[in-house]
Amino acid sequence: MDKTLSGIAASNGIAIAKAFRLENPELIVEKTVVTDTEQEVARLEAALTQSISELETIKEQTSQQISDKEAAIFGAHLLVLSDPELLGPIKEKIETDKNNAEYALQETANMFIQMFESMDNDYMKERAADIRDVTKRVLSHLLGVSIQSPSMISDEVVIIAEDLTPSDTVQLNPKFVKGFITDIGGRTSHSAILARTLEIPAVVGAKTAMEAIENGTVIIVDGLDGQIIIDPDQETIASYEEKKAQYDRQKAEWAKLKNEPTITTDGHAVELGANIGTPKDTVGVLENGGEAIGLYRTEFLYMGRDQFPTEEEQFEAYSSVLKAMEGKPTVVRTLDIGGDKELSYLQLPKELNPFLGLRAIRLCLEMEDMFRTQLRALLRASVHGNLKIMFPMIATLDEFRQAKSLVLDEKAKLQGEGVEVSDSIEIGIMVEIPSTAVMADTFAKEVDFFSIGTNDLIQYTMAADRMNERVSYLYQPFNPAILRLVKMVIDASHREGKWTGMCGEMAGDEIAIPILLGLGLDEFSMSASSILKARAQISKLSKADMESHIDHILAMDTSVEVATYVKEKM
Amino acid sequence: MDKTLSGIAASNGIAIAKAFRLENPELIVEKTVVTDTEQEVARLEAALTQSISELETIKEQTSQQISDKEAAIFGAHLLVLSDPELLGPIKEKIETDKNNAEYALQETANMFIQMFESMDNDYMKERAADIRDVTKRVLSHLLGVSIQSPSMISDEVVIIAEDLTPSDTVQLNPKFVKGFITDIGGRTSHSAILARTLEIPAVVGAKTAMEAIENGTVIIVDGLDGQIIIDPDQETIASYEEKKAQYDRQKAEWAKLKNEPTITTDGHAVELGANIGTPKDTVGVLENGGEAIGLYRTEFLYMGRDQFPTEEEQFEAYSSVLKAMEGKPTVVRTLDIGGDKELSYLQLPKELNPFLGLRAIRLCLEMEDMFRTQLRALLRASVHGNLKIMFPMIATLDEFRQAKSLVLDEKAKLQGEGVEVSDSIEIGIMVEIPSTAVMADTFAKEVDFFSIGTNDLIQYTMAADRMNERVSYLYQPFNPAILRLVKMVIDASHREGKWTGMCGEMAGDEIAIPILLGLGLDEFSMSASSILKARAQISKLSKADMESHIDHILAMDTSVEVATYVKEKM
Repeated sequence: MDKTLSGIAASNGIAIAKAFRLENPELIVEKTVVTDTEQEVARLEAALTQSISELETIKEQTSQQISDKEAAIFGAHLLVLSDPELLGPIKEKIETDKNNAEYALQETANMFIQMFESMDNDYMKERAADIRDVTKRVLSHLLGVSIQSPSMISDEVVIIAEDLTPSDTVQLNPKFVKGFITDIGGRTSHSAILARTLEIPAVVGAKTAMEAIENGTVIIVDGLDGQIIIDPDQETIASYEEKKAQYDRQKAEWAKLKNEPTITTDGHAVELGANIGTPKDTVGVLENGGEAIGLYRTEFLYMGRDQFPTEEEQFEAYSSVLKAMEGKPTVVRTLDIGGDKELSYLQLPKELNPFLGLRAIRLCLEMEDMFRTQLRALLRASVHGNLKIMFPMIATLDEFRQAKSLVLDEKAKLQGEGVEVSDSIEIGIMVEIPSTAVMADTFAKEVDFFSIGTNDLIQYTMAADRMNERVSYLYQPFNPAILRLVKMVIDASHREGKWTGMCGEMAGDEIAIPILLGLGLDEFSMSASSILKARAQISKLSKADMESHIDHILAMDTSVEVATYVKEKM
Repeated sequence: MDKTLSGIAASNGIAIAKAFRLENPELIVEKTVVTDTEQEVARLEAALTQSISELETIKEQTSQQISDKEAAIFGAHLLVLSDPELLGPIKEKIETDKNNAEYALQETANMFIQMFESMDNDYMKERAADIRDVTKRVLSHLLGVSIQSPSMISDEVVIIAEDLTPSDTVQLNPKFVKGFITDIGGRTSHSAILARTLEIPAVVGAKTAMEAIENGTVIIVDGLDGQIIIDPDQETIASYEEKKAQYDRQKAEWAKLKNEPTITTDGHAVELGANIGTPKDTVGVLENGGEAIGLYRTEFLYMGRDQFPTEEEQFEAYSSVLKAMEGKPTVVRTLDIGGDKELSYLQLPKELNPFLGLRAIRLCLEMEDMFRTQLRALLRASVHGNLKIMFPMIATLDEFRQAKSLVLDEKAKLQGEGVEVSDSIEIGIMVEIPSTAVMADTFAKEVDFFSIGTNDLIQYTMAADRMNERVSYLYQPFNPAILRLVKMVIDASHREGKWTGMCGEMAGDEIAIPILLGLGLDEFSMSASSILKARAQISKLSKADMESHIDHILAMDTSVEVATYVKEKM
């Protein structure tokens, strides 16, 4: 009889292959007294050099095969390995206390890990994870233990692991790794997100897979339904092969829509765009038939480094995105840091409620020089494509006016210097704060477009931290309050002849799409891999039909009522 | 020439009297070795006993002269003095290390203070302040140094101090202390709030008053404008005496309105209520002509103790408020903890954004037994007056339905037990979350009333922590977004024949009152001391006139525009 495990469906698709257990070797460190401290330091240096060279290779591969955004993780790891605050104490322990290198490294690293973990700060916690990952690598070299590397896999397999570290995940080669299963993690864990980008079927949070599955056993991973079948019989394999074929047919059907416009059955066109983080992501956007970039998050340019990017570096990045998009609309969001996003080289005071603090445009208006540098880079790049500048976290008209005046000021300066700047740049705002949705009519007179950021808009409208599991029941995209605010924004923009997009997770949601179509949303921006599916869905819907349900939906009491109605009636 | 200092006007009124400098004696602790440790522990015990008896007296006085809410501070101090986790290590240091009691106390206390202060948690920081205050008291007894006590003052004076501790402040006798000036603190510091309750003119944040003012110098404290005049000439004294007389005349005029209804020039009546924290506050409500209690914060019943209050204790408190109000409407808000309000005996997990976390009704619905106890106490007390039950932080109709069903369930149980429960209890909600304002029409069909909590509503609508100075520019009560939400709520309630009150700071604000009247607000709840002034203001306004401005105001762009317009035109 087959044995079945259930987990969280983390990445669509079905894989059938033999299990490959990715095990973490135990790195046992003993404390010894060394006599030749000079030689011991040399051993440490050698292990460091080896680790640095490995990391540089992995970083380069990641950058080429995946994206700069993913590669930034290894930039952070490399920074750890050149940090004198970490290396100093290790060498001192060897020289002064005559500790062996392994022990000195482990003790010092643990001290930093504990320190960072005890801080109530996500950025610091991530640093702790970086140090842990890097320490493991250096220790393995010191101890002469080889760590299993997913990049060495050369057979078709399904990986089984307790968890995948960022370094493991980026080494997954879709040619051989047909699927993976982890015992811990959720749908939004780093490895789950990457699985979707690489289109590798995955089930996470399986709890007992490492216990239940032996190397070489045939495994079916059903990433559509979160199921794992261990050692299936022929009949089961056949039925899953049929399910896989069906899924592949659906994907093939979607693929046909790649170069088609997005039009409803009654002839209404909408624009389907993608959310991206780095210039390399444009490849996936075009491959998936994206008609626009609805959100280019510029934060990644500022991360995994030790100082602000220069105007030139930014100009390069923005130009390359605009060129790649060949005149398609490209919405670039200005820097959105603060809140849960921090930069190592920008020490901001700790806030009691960072989501309600000095972040995004609030911070940019305070750090005007940094902001002006970004704006200059954007303006200079504007001649290379169809640029639209978008400010995040706008709460008042004053903020928008201030930010816009800086754009105009830098534009005039550049033109004074003889630099060419496009004259058709649209300037718009994210609508993610309730006040801005409520005041959309006054904003619509001054902005060129809106893009609704549902993640934050829901969080503030419901007063519930979207990262806090204890109040996750209040994260309700279909709460009629949210839908009413979305309607206010869309209606206000249309009255002034402007357009409204949406770049939150909701824009690509199967249940949300019919409602948003009915509300008149002009642009839907989602992860590139969802575009074709959304296009297929929209091309089967009638806008007039969707509109006819809206009044009824907006008068409903609860989120559940709305979701049920859409599933049954729309 | 007079010397003038400027500070923050913290409590209205003008005082002219001689300066009394309240200085903190230096408590110098030396480390010595004791031989008779038993005797040293006895010295410590004696100092503790003396301190406990002092604190009990102060607590009792405070409870009688001011309120239980203020007295709770000393309850917390007394808890410190009986905490074995603090006392254990002190005695151990004496017995094991042969330290003298002063040194053992100071070392141990400092360790706890540092530990609590390093935690990023307001509750723990307050505990650190408690320990500091208590340690000073015990040390002074051990060292035989007497601490100046404001309660000993028997001449008319103006107190000058660096800052006033809670223990100092509650000892201020308005008979002798005519005013006070502190170098540090703001309008919402503990001493400023108490000055307003006691109606003592005060200027805080004067920065250099301790440096500039000598004992016995004549001082004018202008708590209306935040001015301090040192050693004024006769002419200046005369002009301030005139200003004081004018202020007193105004107060006397207001006092005449004590037993009057609150009616506009065109005959529209509204209700003016007070926000209270403890049963004793009802005295001030009635003295100031309050027509209702618009918000009874039940949190204080749960604070400054080491376990939940029993049903009986709560029944006593609620009954005594209802009886004191003699049938006047009394809105009791169910427990609102979590967020920035914590209880020592309820250890809640730390949250990254506590203002967006598990607080108020969210927590009560999770801790159902605790909540049911409060509801039973309220239902039993209902026969003693005009009770209205209000749930805080309601974000969805589901939450309201759940909370209301618990009330009905407990009511049925009580009636089953033969206990009498009023049949005319109204059940309403705070509107302080944007989703609830936007959905007010659906709520209005099910609730009996709304009360708008502006402090939180503004914070969430603008996505700006109201305690965070870095984003304080976004705390905009007159932002048209807020006013539009207020209008939605009031209109929705009236369409269903329900009423809307407001219990945030905005309800007592001079600029807000004309707008709120124009919007049709039914009940204004504020601090008791603002009621008569508000009544005087409203009785000079015409509702129809105020209404005529509303459309114009709601179409404005910014908060500043609205405030300017109200000042000039309304």
